[in-house]
Amino acid sequence: MALQNDLILRVARGESVERPPVWMMRQAGRYLPEYRAVRARAGSFRNMIANPEFAAEVTLQPIDLMGTDAAIIFSDILVLPEAMGLPYVMEEQRGPVFPEIISGTPDIEKLHLPSASSNLNDTLEAIQIVKEQLSGRVPLLGFAGAPWTIFAYMTEGKGSKTFSRAKAHLYQNPAFAHALLDKITDATIIYLTQQIEAGVDMIQIFDSWAGLLSRDAWLRFSLPYIQKICNAIQGVPKIIFAKGAFYALKELGECDAQVIGLDWNMNPMEAKKQIPGKALQGNLDPCVLYGDEAEIRRQTLQMLSEFEPGKHIVNLGHGIYPDIQPDKARVFLETVKSYRY
Amino acid sequence: MALQNDLILRVARGESVERPPVWMMRQAGRYLPEYRAVRARAGSFRNMIANPEFAAEVTLQPIDLMGTDAAIIFSDILVLPEAMGLPYVMEEQRGPVFPEIISGTPDIEKLHLPSASSNLNDTLEAIQIVKEQLSGRVPLLGFAGAPWTIFAYMTEGKGSKTFSRAKAHLYQNPAFAHALLDKITDATIIYLTQQIEAGVDMIQIFDSWAGLLSRDAWLRFSLPYIQKICNAIQGVPKIIFAKGAFYALKELGECDAQVIGLDWNMNPMEAKKQIPGKALQGNLDPCVLYGDEAEIRRQTLQMLSEFEPGKHIVNLGHGIYPDIQPDKARVFLETVKSYRY
Repeated sequence: MALQNDLILRVARGESVERPPVWMMRQAGRYLPEYRAVRARAGSFRNMIANPEFAAEVTLQPIDLMGTDAAIIFSDILVLPEAMGLPYVMEEQRGPVFPEIISGTPDIEKLHLPSASSNLNDTLEAIQIVKEQLSGRVPLLGFAGAPWTIFAYMTEGKGSKTFSRAKAHLYQNPAFAHALLDKITDATIIYLTQQIEAGVDMIQIFDSWAGLLSRDAWLRFSLPYIQKICNAIQGVPKIIFAKGAFYALKELGECDAQVIGLDWNMNPMEAKKQIPGKALQGNLDPCVLYGDEAEIRRQTLQMLSEFEPGKHIVNLGHGIYPDIQPDKARVFLETVKSYRY
Repeated sequence: MALQNDLILRVARGESVERPPVWMMRQAGRYLPEYRAVRARAGSFRNMIANPEFAAEVTLQPIDLMGTDAAIIFSDILVLPEAMGLPYVMEEQRGPVFPEIISGTPDIEKLHLPSASSNLNDTLEAIQIVKEQLSGRVPLLGFAGAPWTIFAYMTEGKGSKTFSRAKAHLYQNPAFAHALLDKITDATIIYLTQQIEAGVDMIQIFDSWAGLLSRDAWLRFSLPYIQKICNAIQGVPKIIFAKGAFYALKELGECDAQVIGLDWNMNPMEAKKQIPGKALQGNLDPCVLYGDEAEIRRQTLQMLSEFEPGKHIVNLGHGIYPDIQPDKARVFLETVKSYRY
C-alpha cells in the first residue's frame, strides 16, 4: 500500500522534503492518558506487549492523538533476551529485572536463537495489526536494542547507574563478552528480519547504554555488532541511536545505516562537521517540554536551525518523560509541522 | 611547610616533572576495609564528616595505605546546601535526600550564606588536622560542587536518573534558576576561600551533573558560575571536573583553572586538540580495575600514552567503585608511579 506520508523515508533516502518529519521516542507512553487507560485494562506493561491488540492500540495513539509522522511499534528491547531463554519481570519502581543472569561462558550455552513460536510473535502480530489499521497513513518503525545494550541487561540483571557488573566482563573476560555479543547479534538479525517481513517500513537500533563505555571499549564491544546487524539487514532504511556515543560519530556515520540519531548532549553542528551529508535524527532536550509554549517554540526552532534542511528527522534527544503534558508535546510537534524549508 | 612530593602542583603550574602524579576520586572510600572500619565506628557517613577526627583519618588512609600523590579532604559536596539552611539526610540505599527542597523564588529567601559557626567548620577543622598529620608528605586538595550540580540536588531533592524536576526550572523559570545559582556561587566562594585559609594546596570543582544538560543549557546555567568561582578563588591551582561536558572542552579550557578533568568517555587526544597545552586530569574507566593485573597495566599504559607528558595528572575517569579490590587499585597506582617521561 502506498504511503500517504512518507516524509521520514524520503529523508532517509536522501530525497527532497518540504519540511522535516517528526516523531518522538516513547511517543506511545505514559504521558498520554489514553495510554494509561489501556495499561490499566491490560494490567501491566508486560501484558500490553504480550497482547497484540493492546500493543497495536497504543502504537496508533500518537498517530491519532498527536499527529506524528511515523509510528513505532510498542514493544521492549528486552523481549529478545526472553526469546533467547532469559526471561525478565518488570517491577513497578525498579524497572526490568532478570531473575537469572548470564555470568560466564557456560551460561551462553543455555541461550538459543528465537524459535518459530517465541514471545516475539506477539510483537510481530502487533506489527501486522498496526500496518492494517494505519492504512498507509504514516510509516511504521520496528526496533531492537544494540547487542551491547542487551548484553548489559543480560549480565547486570537490572538497570544500574554504572552497569559495573556488565562492564567488568569486558575487562575480565573479553572472549566471553564477544561470544555472548555474537549470539545476541545473530538473534537480533533474526528478529529484525521478522519485523521487516511483518511489515515495518524502517528500523531503529537503540544502543541505550553506549554512554557507559569509553570510546575504545565501545569500538571493540559495541560497534562491530551494530555493523554486523546493519550489513545483514537490508531492504528498509535504518536509524542507529547510540546514546552517549558522541565520541564515535564518525564511526557511526560509516555504518550501513541511513540515519544517525543524536541525543540532546550532542551538538548537531559538530555532527554535521564529522559526518557531512548524513541524515541525522534528534535532538531536543526532553526537558524543554516542561517550558511554556513560547519557550518550547523558541527551543524547537533553534534546534531546527542547527540541522541541515532535508537531512533531519526531528525527535527528542531521548524518550519523552511520563509527566509531560500532551499539549506541550503538541506545541513541539506543531512547531515542526508548520516549519518549511 | 615545604612539600616533599609536589608533583601535582608542578603539573598544575606547568613545571617539569619526572613522572605523572596520580590520585583517585573517592580514594578515601568504601573499597578500603580500613575506611569501612572507621565508618562502622562513626556509625554513618554523615558522622564521619561531622567528626573532624574521623574525616582526617580516612583522608590520610590512601596516603598511608595506597601511596597516592595527593590527599583529598573527606567531605561531601552537599555540606554546602546544609550550611545555607537546607539540611539533608543520607539514606543507605537511596543516597542523599533533602526533606525540603527549593521550588521557587520565595524559597531562595530562606537560604543564607554560610555563617561563622556552620557545619562547614567540621570540614575546615579536618583540613587543619590532615595538614598537620601529612607533615608536607603530599599536597591536600579541597573541593566543592559546581553551582549547577548543587542546584540540581537542592531542587530535585535526591539523586535521579534525569533530574527532570531540577532541569524543568531552567526552561520554566530561568530567572529563578539564575537567582539560586548566584546564591550558591556566593556561598561556594566563601567555602573555598575558607578551605584555602585552613590549608588546602589545590581545589577541585565537581560539576557531577554537567552531562544532564545540553551544551546550550550548560553554557547558560553552569559555565558562568564556574567562571565566577574560578575568578574569585586565587592563590592555589584549580581543577574543574565537569562530568559529561565533552561538548564544552574549549570553554572549560578558557576558564581561570590550571587543570581540566576528563571523564572516561572523553578522548584525551580530542581534548589535547581542543585545548592544547592545558594540563588534563584523568581518565581511566573505573571498571578497568575489575580486570586482572596485566589488563590494568595495559589499559593504564595505553591511557598514559594518550596524554601529553608533563601535562597530565593521572586519575580515574570517575570515582573508584566500592567493590574494587585495593590490590587492583595498587596495580594502577604502581603502574603510574613507575612510569618515567
